[in-house]
Amino acid sequence: MAGLAPARLDERARIGATALGDLARGAAFLGSGGGGDPYHNRLLGEAMIARRGPFELIALDALADDALVVPCGWIGAPTVSVEKLPNGNEALRGLRRLEELLGRRIDAVLPIEIGGGNGLAPLIAAAQLGIPVVDADGMGRAFPESQMSIFSIAGLSACPSVMTDASGALVIIEAADNHTHERLARQLSIAMGGDAHMTEYPLTGRLAKAHAIPGSISTAIAAGAAIRQARAAGEDPFEALFAALRASPLYRFAGALFDGKITDLERETTRGFAIGRVTIEGFMGAGRLDIEFQNENLVARRDGKICAMVPDLITIMDRETAETITTDRLKYGQRVKVAGAAAPPMLRDAKALWMVGPSAFGLAEAFVPIEKLNGWEDL
Amino acid sequence: MAGLAPARLDERARIGATALGDLARGAAFLGSGGGGDPYHNRLLGEAMIARRGPFELIALDALADDALVVPCGWIGAPTVSVEKLPNGNEALRGLRRLEELLGRRIDAVLPIEIGGGNGLAPLIAAAQLGIPVVDADGMGRAFPESQMSIFSIAGLSACPSVMTDASGALVIIEAADNHTHERLARQLSIAMGGDAHMTEYPLTGRLAKAHAIPGSISTAIAAGAAIRQARAAGEDPFEALFAALRASPLYRFAGALFDGKITDLERETTRGFAIGRVTIEGFMGAGRLDIEFQNENLVARRDGKICAMVPDLITIMDRETAETITTDRLKYGQRVKVAGAAAPPMLRDAKALWMVGPSAFGLAEAFVPIEKLNGWEDL
Repeated sequence: MAGLAPARLDERARIGATALGDLARGAAFLGSGGGGDPYHNRLLGEAMIARRGPFELIALDALADDALVVPCGWIGAPTVSVEKLPNGNEALRGLRRLEELLGRRIDAVLPIEIGGGNGLAPLIAAAQLGIPVVDADGMGRAFPESQMSIFSIAGLSACPSVMTDASGALVIIEAADNHTHERLARQLSIAMGGDAHMTEYPLTGRLAKAHAIPGSISTAIAAGAAIRQARAAGEDPFEALFAALRASPLYRFAGALFDGKITDLERETTRGFAIGRVTIEGFMGAGRLDIEFQNENLVARRDGKICAMVPDLITIMDRETAETITTDRLKYGQRVKVAGAAAPPMLRDAKALWMVGPSAFGLAEAFVPIEKLNGWEDL
Repeated sequence: MAGLAPARLDERARIGATALGDLARGAAFLGSGGGGDPYHNRLLGEAMIARRGPFELIALDALADDALVVPCGWIGAPTVSVEKLPNGNEALRGLRRLEELLGRRIDAVLPIEIGGGNGLAPLIAAAQLGIPVVDADGMGRAFPESQMSIFSIAGLSACPSVMTDASGALVIIEAADNHTHERLARQLSIAMGGDAHMTEYPLTGRLAKAHAIPGSISTAIAAGAAIRQARAAGEDPFEALFAALRASPLYRFAGALFDGKITDLERETTRGFAIGRVTIEGFMGAGRLDIEFQNENLVARRDGKICAMVPDLITIMDRETAETITTDRLKYGQRVKVAGAAAPPMLRDAKALWMVGPSAFGLAEAFVPIEKLNGWEDL
């Protein structure tokens, strides 16, 4: 892996316990409510660091053209993943089977989505395989469906994918298109108990460099560190978070959308997802915010008017600590601040919006960037 | 069918259009209401015979010990399979992928179940591959679930299995046990539109000879021929069918259970099955028969008392023509005769009953052989 570009990360970096905590915090924010609560993966990661030392991260640019790079993560409903424990072998088993299938070793893995627990899970998988994690991901946030990835937008196939579950079952999917793949994988995730590990979109290093969203792990770590440091210094953790996001080339606009208390919540685990809506009322009658979610927060309406929509990020956070509250952790009465951020630019062009924009979620409204909706353009 | 041995079959035989029709008729009866209506597969088979000549059948005993023998057929709800047309390539694609996976050519296929359309489908698959079909099957009838096979009873694994659908999707399942395999395959069959092709329980010739149910294809042909010949001769096709069954070592007791008209029918396509119940009333107040089904007819109660139960066969037939009416073709007002037959002996021991007996279908009653329930023991 010689011949590195000085993109944002040195050729290699190490993620110790502090950086892992920052990653958990930052990935939770980038999950836009989804990707699964990072709590379990953080605990697993800390135990692994204590046993084997820090995780190894390499820059996307450092990949050899002919490397085999595999995005991976968990598929299912976050409401299930917080309760159903893994057997710990799912990722290793799936990745090893993919190696057999492709007849070669995997050189590196990356998160299929940086958001939530899925931003951390590949670190554990990589350590089990003794290979590095690439500082990149396939969604720049979290999305509920497998075809909602930058690789799909680029026309690449999710297949062959390998799904594994805690019972020891393993399934290889070879579908003709990524929507069919999602349909099969989703039904399987239900049959597998609502939560399963998946390796998908196996890539050459060349394709990963051309299409993966670069620097998302280091950006998540920076975002998480900003919150941690601001809290330690007695400063506003939200302002620190927004400044860290704005400093990255991925999330150029960020800010608070609303401040208030959760006064209504509907959430059900159905069709393999956590689906619902939440209402937040401002303090002392200061308006209301309604958010719809499918694992991830999809659209926020402030006093009935849209103020943020997919693919832009909408994250509900504890208003004191700036810890993210994923959709599976939402509760009546929580006092929250809702933060928003612009999606990475590659998720906002017409081709990308067809796959991850409002219409992909059945919303009638056309996409309007969060910075336009909130007058952040001059920030 | 020249050169038929009195026992089962010479080493090889050929199935032309007449034998194919007999097989369709016989397999429909052996389906015990399920396995799918053989209509489509008969048409496909006739077209194939016209183009390529007769199908090739070999005796189970003729297999080499180290042959690779693969049971296959369609999984799903028969109510769907009569409406959803295949792309015609599903079996070939799945079997070829299994060859890649196992690193060798398949020497022969056999029906996973002799019952219904699945008794014919492997003939078409075999012809596409240019290999013979083995005169044997995995269930000796049809059953709704994949683990309800003689191979499962013998402790063999269904995996790796390969599922393929009309959209071109292909899925390989490697589950730790056959019940998990069924759960995953069933959900996939739903995601694949309610009907999919599956290769499962790949076997060596040695294991096939030790465990497959021998002679079921030639027995089905003989049963179908008996009906056809009796009708042509103006004789009772039911008596001819029963005589043909009793002459085989597989179905030693057979007879009529009831005669009447369908007066009530509940059937829904749910959880990937056709599930329901049908009531038949005797003519001029001569009692009633109630049958419960899950793809296949499971239990028949005559005036409230059980007169046949799984794994024994219960088949509803047109009372004039002795054509089988599969559960997906049942209609109010049909005038029917209900026929029953003893299951093959290997499905009736304690180990087999655990997998395919009444308790496997949630019935409270213990298995009692049909010949005991109907006083046929002296026949």
